[in-house]
Amino acid sequence: MPQTPRNPEFEATIKDSFARQAMMATAGARLAQVSAGLCVIEAPIRPAMTQQHGFGHAALTFALGDSAAGYAALTLMEAGQEVLTSEMKINLLAPAKGDGLKAIGRVLKAGRRLIVVQSDVYALDGEVETHIAALQGTMVPV
Amino acid sequence: MPQTPRNPEFEATIKDSFARQAMMATAGARLAQVSAGLCVIEAPIRPAMTQQHGFGHAALTFALGDSAAGYAALTLMEAGQEVLTSEMKINLLAPAKGDGLKAIGRVLKAGRRLIVVQSDVYALDGEVETHIAALQGTMVPV
Amino acid sequence: MPQTPRNPEFEATIKDSFARQAMMATAGARLAQVSAGLCVIEAPIRPAMTQQHGFGHAALTFALGDSAAGYAALTLMEAGQEVLTSEMKINLLAPAKGDGLKAIGRVLKAGRRLIVVQSDVYALDGEVETHIAALQGTMVPV
Amino acid sequence: MPQTPRNPEFEATIKDSFARQAMMATAGARLAQVSAGLCVIEAPIRPAMTQQHGFGHAALTFALGDSAAGYAALTLMEAGQEVLTSEMKINLLAPAKGDGLKAIGRVLKAGRRLIVVQSDVYALDGEVETHIAALQGTMVPV
Repeated sequence: MPQTPRNPEFEATIKDSFARQAMMATAGARLAQVSAGLCVIEAPIRPAMTQQHGFGHAALTFALGDSAAGYAALTLMEAGQEVLTSEMKINLLAPAKGDGLKAIGRVLKAGRRLIVVQSDVYALDGEVETHIAALQGTMVPV
Repeated sequence: MPQTPRNPEFEATIKDSFARQAMMATAGARLAQVSAGLCVIEAPIRPAMTQQHGFGHAALTFALGDSAAGYAALTLMEAGQEVLTSEMKINLLAPAKGDGLKAIGRVLKAGRRLIVVQSDVYALDGEVETHIAALQGTMVPV
Repeated sequence: MPQTPRNPEFEATIKDSFARQAMMATAGARLAQVSAGLCVIEAPIRPAMTQQHGFGHAALTFALGDSAAGYAALTLMEAGQEVLTSEMKINLLAPAKGDGLKAIGRVLKAGRRLIVVQSDVYALDGEVETHIAALQGTMVPV
Repeated sequence: MPQTPRNPEFEATIKDSFARQAMMATAGARLAQVSAGLCVIEAPIRPAMTQQHGFGHAALTFALGDSAAGYAALTLMEAGQEVLTSEMKINLLAPAKGDGLKAIGRVLKAGRRLIVVQSDVYALDGEVETHIAALQGTMVPV
């Protein structure tokens, strides 16, 4: 689908929003890539973000996948708009095991009122990338 | 539905598992109630867990709702089993605004291989409780 | 939550919309109850709507659960509006086995732009009601 | 991911199962393609399967998307196993408007106990294909 940004400053908008999310700082996450309809976020698996077996907590995987999807949606919104998650579904495919996580968010369908998004999260363990989660949801502009 | 615990020590099992989840400590969460097929978790909205407007991050809401649902499922599993989230869907109803959050997880259907769960998350602001999220998902014993 | 209909003719609106859905006629479905924020739909399990074991097809369960949820949402919309499913998630709990199905749809949160709904579907087998599915989703007014 | 069928007769298994689903016959659906981890189903938009505006009913879109995903999962199961939908989420992207629908189901992750699947449904209107729905869910072998 044609995905033409309506906000020429979308990159700056997203960097600014990302910087104001304390949760992203707590996770040690960084914006790795932003382009029209796409956003990539990476983070280490910090001990503070683990579950009972020492793997990354599902909420960390959710946090990164949801944020990558939300910012992918924000690339296609108008200047001055912000993005809210309306609903999100996550299927967990494998444990969040390794050095870090990478979430790739994409816009599936950008409507005026609703933006449908998908996100895939990968665990990075040395050279190996494992697909650990698939998310599908809806973002709304506010 | 009849929900008879098969693990007579389920409370101790859950307290032990909860204590080993670093993410729950990072969130300042505590187990408020555990009974057969039910689990309640409470947490403050710490600055470290906020999004760009200072409200609780959706990933915090998810973390609490998912954990309450998972431990509700664990109350009905056998001794020695642990619980993994297979999939979870969250609909966000209102901002996570206030002093703290309370998540109530319940078992909808306990099968041997799959346990279907629901969870509701409330924001606590002084005396006011606001329903901020509804979650529905599947837990698996491992 | 307070659920005050804004369309005083909501019952007539829903009956009319229901009557125009050929799929509901194909399923032999009927509106059993409509009130503010609630809708109940019943249908037989017709041979034409079965899966490979002779039970009701998941798509029949979905059709009834989704429609009950959608019409529950429509009870709270303005006159002249119609309802569209934006997204819906279904967890199947047991086979659709018996004489018929009953779907109960409810509004969880009615916003101006999005209405979050839940639906439960039961199989009716003589005197026995079995909970066979739980749905959670989002409706939009158009 | 490597997707090696364990049932050498998977095509015959799926054709046989499909033929026994009365719902697929009611919809006029046909198996257009079956290969390891993939299934394509096509159907006309019959008047009997429409909603109140004459477009295909969401339950028809669900029926095709869910079945394509289920049979994609069945290609990777063992001989003698059958497939059940455990849970499925659908995001609707556009109306089911046109001559027919095509659903493409794929396996995302094939575990022994759970198979995570995705499905995309397209409306076919003359030469134009429109992406109308994305589904993500879990299939279980029985």
